[in-house]
Amino acid sequence: MKTLVIISHPSILESSSQQFLLSAVPKNHHITIHHLEHAYPDGNIDVNREQQLLKEHDRIIFQFPFYWYSTPAFLKQWQDEVLTEGFAHGNERGKLVGKQFGLIFMLGVHEREYQAGGRELYTISELTRPFQAMAHKTGMRYLKPLTVFQFAYMTDEEKMNLFIDYQQMLTNKNDNSLISKEKWIINQLENMDSNDLDDQAKIIIDHTIELINENRININELSKVIEEMY
Amino acid sequence: MKTLVIISHPSILESSSQQFLLSAVPKNHHITIHHLEHAYPDGNIDVNREQQLLKEHDRIIFQFPFYWYSTPAFLKQWQDEVLTEGFAHGNERGKLVGKQFGLIFMLGVHEREYQAGGRELYTISELTRPFQAMAHKTGMRYLKPLTVFQFAYMTDEEKMNLFIDYQQMLTNKNDNSLISKEKWIINQLENMDSNDLDDQAKIIIDHTIELINENRININELSKVIEEMY
Repeated sequence: MKTLVIISHPSILESSSQQFLLSAVPKNHHITIHHLEHAYPDGNIDVNREQQLLKEHDRIIFQFPFYWYSTPAFLKQWQDEVLTEGFAHGNERGKLVGKQFGLIFMLGVHEREYQAGGRELYTISELTRPFQAMAHKTGMRYLKPLTVFQFAYMTDEEKMNLFIDYQQMLTNKNDNSLISKEKWIINQLENMDSNDLDDQAKIIIDHTIELINENRININELSKVIEEMY
Repeated sequence: MKTLVIISHPSILESSSQQFLLSAVPKNHHITIHHLEHAYPDGNIDVNREQQLLKEHDRIIFQFPFYWYSTPAFLKQWQDEVLTEGFAHGNERGKLVGKQFGLIFMLGVHEREYQAGGRELYTISELTRPFQAMAHKTGMRYLKPLTVFQFAYMTDEEKMNLFIDYQQMLTNKNDNSLISKEKWIINQLENMDSNDLDDQAKIIIDHTIELINENRININELSKVIEEMY
């Protein structure tokens, strides 16, 4: 699977959350990081190039800070200019049909405020309807978004979880099952560069993989017992 | 009441619906028409000027074509740059508190497609949540939007209704009651420039006003009868 991460941020170097995510981009995967403000400093988007990029990837991600409950203006300009009738929608089936589409965005307000009675009044699902409608119109499957609330206040453990969630969002086949997550983690562990690890670390990793596999066997056996009970 | 109509349209001269609405802007009212692409052809928004304009008006209207379930990118840029923390929201009450905020936008797809099961899947109320959230955060009252579906296919009668609805959206106190609408229409009729009218037209207008007033008296009497029946 090839993933295209379209980032829009007017001052990405000053954004600690964006820099953190960039440092988490997994290697050895087909991931294209595409920062719009860097690619087009004069604001003139190369529509053909962008459409070509979209065609070459299977999963399209918008990564951005949540400005006024939406993307920064430049990413909106990208939508208006690149997702043309004929290419992205229209009488014939567009070129994006069957791809996956996801949002990764940062918010300065606490998660609990995004609900009825909260300070922001509406849920994230409500506020992102325009993107769900876009995915629907272009025939893309809308993924569960990755939302980063108040990065500056996150603990180290929360940041480590974000690190993993971000890598999964970019590389994992999106079936949300525990099995899929297990396979993904085992794959990550197995692909660690052994040159960077000492012998003790290698042994720990081997044991970890073994443990996850044993847990899986236990879960499968328990499932069978439950089935037979019915 | 002073109304500020902020228009964003990249090619307004070629838009028949925008030109139609511009021709409907009522005179003798405190209405400021402000076309962003015309005011800032180089794309550099004068934030101070914009904030001053907002302060001077009571009703703020965004008028635009619906692009990807939102405004054109330039109006998004305006939001991101003009509605700053400290001015529009923040710890202290912002400068927009108590004002009214409304959307007027044109759509190329039929109204019935904007619902579950329709081609666009979501209702207009769902797709415009970001603007409702913006009004909420800035302390403005969100008005019922004026939506113009498929202007090119509208009949003359539909266009005439749009003409009236547009004028009301710009000038009417927004309590949505029949009485308020009656008063507004009588006011419009009384304020017609008598120099433009021949004698017959003046008589018809006088009779129309009389008729509306008589209807109001009848409605009030019927309401009383119903009240007494309970």
